[in-house]
Amino acid sequence: MDIKKLMLDMAKAARDAGRVVAKLPTDTKNKVLLSMAEELVKQTKKIQKANEKDLQAAKKKGLSAAFIDRLTLTDKVIKAMADGLAEVAALPDPVGEVVRMWRRPNGLQVGRMRIPLGVIGMIYESRPNVTVDAAALCLKAGNAILLRGGSEAIHSNLVLAGVLQKSLEKFKIPGEAIQVIPVTDREAVKEMLLLEEYIDLIIPRGGESLIRFVAQNSRIPVLKHYKGVCHIFVDESADIEIARKVCYNAKVQRPGVCNAMETMLVHEKIARDFLPAMAMDFAKARVELRGCPKTRKILPRAVPATEEDWPAEYLDLILAVRVVKDMDEAIKHIARYGSNHTEAIITSDYSRARKFLNDVDSSVVLVNASTRFNDGGQLGLGAEIGISTSKLHAFGPMGLEELTSTNFIVFGDGQVRT
Amino acid sequence: MDIKKLMLDMAKAARDAGRVVAKLPTDTKNKVLLSMAEELVKQTKKIQKANEKDLQAAKKKGLSAAFIDRLTLTDKVIKAMADGLAEVAALPDPVGEVVRMWRRPNGLQVGRMRIPLGVIGMIYESRPNVTVDAAALCLKAGNAILLRGGSEAIHSNLVLAGVLQKSLEKFKIPGEAIQVIPVTDREAVKEMLLLEEYIDLIIPRGGESLIRFVAQNSRIPVLKHYKGVCHIFVDESADIEIARKVCYNAKVQRPGVCNAMETMLVHEKIARDFLPAMAMDFAKARVELRGCPKTRKILPRAVPATEEDWPAEYLDLILAVRVVKDMDEAIKHIARYGSNHTEAIITSDYSRARKFLNDVDSSVVLVNASTRFNDGGQLGLGAEIGISTSKLHAFGPMGLEELTSTNFIVFGDGQVRT
Repeated sequence: MDIKKLMLDMAKAARDAGRVVAKLPTDTKNKVLLSMAEELVKQTKKIQKANEKDLQAAKKKGLSAAFIDRLTLTDKVIKAMADGLAEVAALPDPVGEVVRMWRRPNGLQVGRMRIPLGVIGMIYESRPNVTVDAAALCLKAGNAILLRGGSEAIHSNLVLAGVLQKSLEKFKIPGEAIQVIPVTDREAVKEMLLLEEYIDLIIPRGGESLIRFVAQNSRIPVLKHYKGVCHIFVDESADIEIARKVCYNAKVQRPGVCNAMETMLVHEKIARDFLPAMAMDFAKARVELRGCPKTRKILPRAVPATEEDWPAEYLDLILAVRVVKDMDEAIKHIARYGSNHTEAIITSDYSRARKFLNDVDSSVVLVNASTRFNDGGQLGLGAEIGISTSKLHAFGPMGLEELTSTNFIVFGDGQVRT
Repeated sequence: MDIKKLMLDMAKAARDAGRVVAKLPTDTKNKVLLSMAEELVKQTKKIQKANEKDLQAAKKKGLSAAFIDRLTLTDKVIKAMADGLAEVAALPDPVGEVVRMWRRPNGLQVGRMRIPLGVIGMIYESRPNVTVDAAALCLKAGNAILLRGGSEAIHSNLVLAGVLQKSLEKFKIPGEAIQVIPVTDREAVKEMLLLEEYIDLIIPRGGESLIRFVAQNSRIPVLKHYKGVCHIFVDESADIEIARKVCYNAKVQRPGVCNAMETMLVHEKIARDFLPAMAMDFAKARVELRGCPKTRKILPRAVPATEEDWPAEYLDLILAVRVVKDMDEAIKHIARYGSNHTEAIITSDYSRARKFLNDVDSSVVLVNASTRFNDGGQLGLGAEIGISTSKLHAFGPMGLEELTSTNFIVFGDGQVRT
């Protein structure tokens, strides 16, 4: 197969379809999304039949039970995808919103209006629900999408895209607005990343090596998220009950995700009061603690932390713990080892809260709340297509607004420049 | 010289300096800018001495009079640069602005706060005033800047950076926040474009080949501006006096810039009334008209336009003219040949105005006003560091706000995720 030509044809078709979806009335987009939701549930059997092929192949390959679990499209999972579509339909349409408008001394009225980005390329691993979620968000924001999922989910993804396209076509919208790339080797990704004329943004989701590959080979802007090495600093003025509750939640509630706490920094003046109680909580959840020498004086059973522990993203029930002499040391530690993802302070001191918010360079900075709130839904964006840890275009969780740009609209009555 | 090492050292120093300027109080930044303004005027002789070296070299190379004119730092030009610094000091500081804040059902208060981008790499041609303008804007937005100007202005740029750095250091701010790269061959640019760990954004300003080189070699996000093929559509309902005034201004007031009109599209129902009068105005300004066959039926003296004229950016007193049968044809022409830069409609019809604003995919879309208003200063942004014709991060003129990002700040009282 001529992959170069395939990718070019798909991208060109996406560009043309993007011009159509960019202009769709909100009402039409919402009707399409609800029709997709209905269609997904109706086609459950057909979807599961395709999914079964992926599952067979995964079992043959000996992939882990957890992997197979994430790949499986049960009735419940399909229903959840349909519900997700209805939720996106209920979100406000960002397109056409005039975010500000002002008048110039010469009478010109100038506004900034949200407009779609155009064509989004999404590169992701094997959860088929991403196919539906990402397509829904892109459509609502007036964009076309090219989806390149993992090879292990290819049959599921193709059938899902087929269902979504059917609803598009029912409303006379070109099905090419939502396309799954049928080729799963890296060559297809490489070709896609060169098509800057037809694709406006690449969003990779997955492991660090995939994301580095994309970042290094792309001529198209990439919104990327390398890793989440999230910190909580427990200040000397912390309310110990709040600190215990928040740190426990940040580590234990879902340890395998990017916004889970990986390192806990504790002010030395509160360490003796706080650490033993906290360690008991963590022991119940079987969290392994890796402590600096000062931590181990208080918690002798903690594993000695090494230099590798500070930048580590464990994604597991492991926590690095460091006792610091003050907040400056904590902030320096975060600047050195952190990933600009999510950081929190537990404090009851007004000026420390202010200083932490101003001095920590992360996409989400919290006072007295769990790092687990770095999530588009939790922060009130309605939904999320990913989290960006670099500052261009979007920093932090990306919702519908982050899938748009703004242009300037100008109303005059004959003004000229002098 | 080891260019790789030089660039790495400069970029690392910029990153460190950037951390300092990111946290500067507005008041300090303004004092530094005013001190720079004062110092520039004081050091006029020294600056002119360095500038003289560049001028000698330029004359020896036989560069054009216009080029040498743009390169020359007269007393008046230096005074204008100083005034520019004072203007930036007077602009509102974008850093720390909370652009929105809302409360979640669980009581969390979530805000989006403007933060600096970090380190900006600016690659530009030979106007030394860009050195001062860009440095001022970056400093005010809390960023460090690496400046790589054209080789013809290298002595001027180095002495200007020295003057600016002196003011930084007077306020105990690392001079590395504003650095001019002393090496002017392309190798230095190439090395710079690989330092994604230390540089957050590249802004190239100059000819298309320079910008393509940057875009193709950069691992760092690039805010680019290829060209400005700007259109005005004169609708059948246009007020002819307004159309004449605006089209004349857009073509003639300063033909060599990116927001000048390059193609005029005229509704066939108004062409006979409008074109002869308009052509008389243009004839007085010696504008060469290149017309489609329908145009030449009305203006037989117009040069026949060829297919090359429609995408041309003349930057000169030349104008392509096409008579179209309706607005749809005009919009299609713009989509095909335009550069997403600036487009205007002249109309007295409400729904046409609305449709043009919604359907034309350009960074600035105007009704009854000159394309020449696509400019940060003219649109009210206070100043501008460039114009972006791609949609990621910024689309259109970029002022101080476009040199920032936003993060999320979250105020809680012990909230955890369930």
